[in-house]
Amino acid sequence: MAKPKKQPRPRAETPKGFRDYFGAEVTRRAEMLAVIARVYHRYGFDALESSAVETVEALGKFLPDVDRPNEGVFAWQEGEEDGRGDWLALRYDLTAPLARVYAQHRNDLPTPYRRYAMGPVWRNEKPGPGRFRQFYQCDADTVGAPSVAADAEICAMLADTLEAVGIARGDYVIRVNNRKVLNGVLEAMGLPDDAQRDAVLRTIDKFDKVGEAGVRALLGKGRLDASGAYIDGVGLSDGQAEPVLAFLTSKGADNAATLSNLRGAVGASATGAEGADELAEIATLLEAQGYGPDRVVIDPSVVRGLGYYTGPVFEAELTFEITDEKGRPRQFGSVAGGGRYDDLVKRFTGQAVPATGVSIGVDRLLAALAAKGQAGAEAQGPVVVTVMDRARMADYQAMVGELRAAGIRAEVYLGNPKNFGNQLKYADRRGSPAAVIAGEDEFQRGMVQVKDLILGAKIAENATLEEWKERPSQVEVPRGDLVATLREILDGTP
Amino acid sequence: MAKPKKQPRPRAETPKGFRDYFGAEVTRRAEMLAVIARVYHRYGFDALESSAVETVEALGKFLPDVDRPNEGVFAWQEGEEDGRGDWLALRYDLTAPLARVYAQHRNDLPTPYRRYAMGPVWRNEKPGPGRFRQFYQCDADTVGAPSVAADAEICAMLADTLEAVGIARGDYVIRVNNRKVLNGVLEAMGLPDDAQRDAVLRTIDKFDKVGEAGVRALLGKGRLDASGAYIDGVGLSDGQAEPVLAFLTSKGADNAATLSNLRGAVGASATGAEGADELAEIATLLEAQGYGPDRVVIDPSVVRGLGYYTGPVFEAELTFEITDEKGRPRQFGSVAGGGRYDDLVKRFTGQAVPATGVSIGVDRLLAALAAKGQAGAEAQGPVVVTVMDRARMADYQAMVGELRAAGIRAEVYLGNPKNFGNQLKYADRRGSPAAVIAGEDEFQRGMVQVKDLILGAKIAENATLEEWKERPSQVEVPRGDLVATLREILDGTP
Repeated sequence: MAKPKKQPRPRAETPKGFRDYFGAEVTRRAEMLAVIARVYHRYGFDALESSAVETVEALGKFLPDVDRPNEGVFAWQEGEEDGRGDWLALRYDLTAPLARVYAQHRNDLPTPYRRYAMGPVWRNEKPGPGRFRQFYQCDADTVGAPSVAADAEICAMLADTLEAVGIARGDYVIRVNNRKVLNGVLEAMGLPDDAQRDAVLRTIDKFDKVGEAGVRALLGKGRLDASGAYIDGVGLSDGQAEPVLAFLTSKGADNAATLSNLRGAVGASATGAEGADELAEIATLLEAQGYGPDRVVIDPSVVRGLGYYTGPVFEAELTFEITDEKGRPRQFGSVAGGGRYDDLVKRFTGQAVPATGVSIGVDRLLAALAAKGQAGAEAQGPVVVTVMDRARMADYQAMVGELRAAGIRAEVYLGNPKNFGNQLKYADRRGSPAAVIAGEDEFQRGMVQVKDLILGAKIAENATLEEWKERPSQVEVPRGDLVATLREILDGTP
Repeated sequence: MAKPKKQPRPRAETPKGFRDYFGAEVTRRAEMLAVIARVYHRYGFDALESSAVETVEALGKFLPDVDRPNEGVFAWQEGEEDGRGDWLALRYDLTAPLARVYAQHRNDLPTPYRRYAMGPVWRNEKPGPGRFRQFYQCDADTVGAPSVAADAEICAMLADTLEAVGIARGDYVIRVNNRKVLNGVLEAMGLPDDAQRDAVLRTIDKFDKVGEAGVRALLGKGRLDASGAYIDGVGLSDGQAEPVLAFLTSKGADNAATLSNLRGAVGASATGAEGADELAEIATLLEAQGYGPDRVVIDPSVVRGLGYYTGPVFEAELTFEITDEKGRPRQFGSVAGGGRYDDLVKRFTGQAVPATGVSIGVDRLLAALAAKGQAGAEAQGPVVVTVMDRARMADYQAMVGELRAAGIRAEVYLGNPKNFGNQLKYADRRGSPAAVIAGEDEFQRGMVQVKDLILGAKIAENATLEEWKERPSQVEVPRGDLVATLREILDGTP
């Protein structure tokens, strides 16, 4: 093996678009995922953890006429430079691996197969502010259940999940739409060719951004976009465009009114009628379990992902206002979405397998809870036992041992103990509730000093001098009272 | 963009050396990691989740004179085929990323920095039976603490962790050794050149496999190995080899005896004496907290990783016997290891930063608990509400809604309901404790049938006919008693 050449020092940097997560960022996410897993489990979903690495072939992102796959995935070729091995890639979502897992293990899995999965996924995209190339997804899918009862179940579970993680009823709504209704609308329009159909679909996808008037213009002659560029339209007449607009704006005062509008928009299309029937059945099933339109509602303006899905689609939106980075109020928006996709497993087996599922944007949901001030208390630092006398290290260790045995987070200061001020600065940086101080004098007398650092922080914030006087910031207590004294400070009772 | 050619169906397979984890395999690991995290947290360690992807430069595995890094990591080059981007790779452990994180964020992190990390790591190695290329690690490290009090703390925490996950006291031992003692031995031997020193080190690393006589032969003239091949020895005389053997076999009846033997083995070497002093201090600190030699013991036969570490090293071994796949009893062996490494951050900053830590082999520890029969009960399947009448789907959904609200795992059968036998087979496959059955007749009368599937399984196992008679396998109860009836079955009280 060749000897490595002397190199300059490596840069201590994450790759572009990646980041590290520290302390409470990690534990809050872990706690939220555990809460979500409990809800999914109660609904009969089983955990699945597939490998992070898949063959590019299984992911289905490999274009055979380019040298290497680089369309959104991180990929590399197995083996040496001879390049004869499989192309492997990091998974870009949790749905493509589910299709592979189901196809591979279908003889050992129950049908229907309800599974949940949570973990990082990777996207080889240009990173931007707040856009990372590794992020968490948390999915639940039912494979092998053709009935819309499976879709209704996912919607109910999504509502339960949002409430379980701390989003109050009334602060969210799950909107349901159906790709079949849109197909019915397209049928009713009698568009002459696929190209025009695709152009209409692409235009509908812009509804979220450009609104009703924008879509109307884009279906017709076109419009100026925000940058001043002229965007050509699809070229439909007003009359031809009407069913699309009727579809997008068909939300009525209640589900019955919405369904009636939808049936109008799809005209004589059998597919469209089937889609409307499915939506009606989903609403009925959900209401039987107490999920009324205050939580799950039929809303044809949900267009996200309509191109990908084949039946019902759903999106969970948080309805409360937050203040954005520029101080303006805005709605938080979508935190989860999903729907029915019936062709994913077919790639592998040739057989169509019905499937429906939801993906929760874990990081967005955490951000929403933080914006609501419900992120949970900042993780408390440990009690720091300071080191006045190196020779007493065994005694300090015995103290933290006792504290930990009593369930109190605690540590001995293990940096250089020479500068005592540094030890207190360290405790401050750690967010410690208290510091314990004992030198030779205290050891001789069987006492310890306990410094209340919560109080110090509270005084700095808003406590009055009176409160300060009632609760001394440092007390000397007998060594035997150490645990009891700290418990008092941690419980906040003077 | 070129149009993809029509391809044959993709293979539904994980890449070689990767696997999927299902159900209880996932949840058991998650539960164990949560228990470990709680112990680490109580010791003042903070969570860190670094990105799975690092630059090859930061990992330090890139050989500049080969085209691509393939020494044990999965790596690829950023950017297009022009190949001008950074080389990126999946992390192969959690220590190299810690060094990068500490170097990158050292101004924002406390010193000492105690952190824990858990997650998958990837190795680009030849897979074998039971050897996977993605597996979990669970590490705790203290960066910036030069004192051996930090090493002692890690040992205490490791003991607490093993007990917290279910390894009883007496079923494990943590053995501690010190690289400095070995350095002292090498000094005392007065070896003439580095090559011979390295050869001695490599030989010592084989002690676990070949034992005392094997090491003696390999330090001298050499020996025949198990395959019949002759392995050349280092060429030392018996006298020269003696200190090494004295070191490896210096474990005495108690720590004091071991330390006395070690001081003999290192002769006049100052480094060796320092190493022995450190071991003595670790033992003293641990005993002050109640961790006696029944849990943590000085044992110079621990040689694993001596080459990598710079000071104390430790290894947790499970001491109970298990039965291997061929039915032979054997000791379970090592489940965790670690030690002090002081040069890792220096690569980035030029400054040596003392660090010590431990890595738990999560999958091995899970296997150990399973071998002890302590893996926890097989995860229970959901109550399955069967579908006798499709038109009653809303009623079935209302039933599972009630059960879930009562905290009972439950689902409606969502496959094709035509063949009722298939529904019961499904419940069986899911490990369901009970099935609920209600057709038009039951609905009319306000009743439901509840089929006890736990009982069925028990009878199949070992229950007597008497028990069977006392507890009917299927009961009809009023609809209003559904939750109470299932709770009785689930609690196992007739």
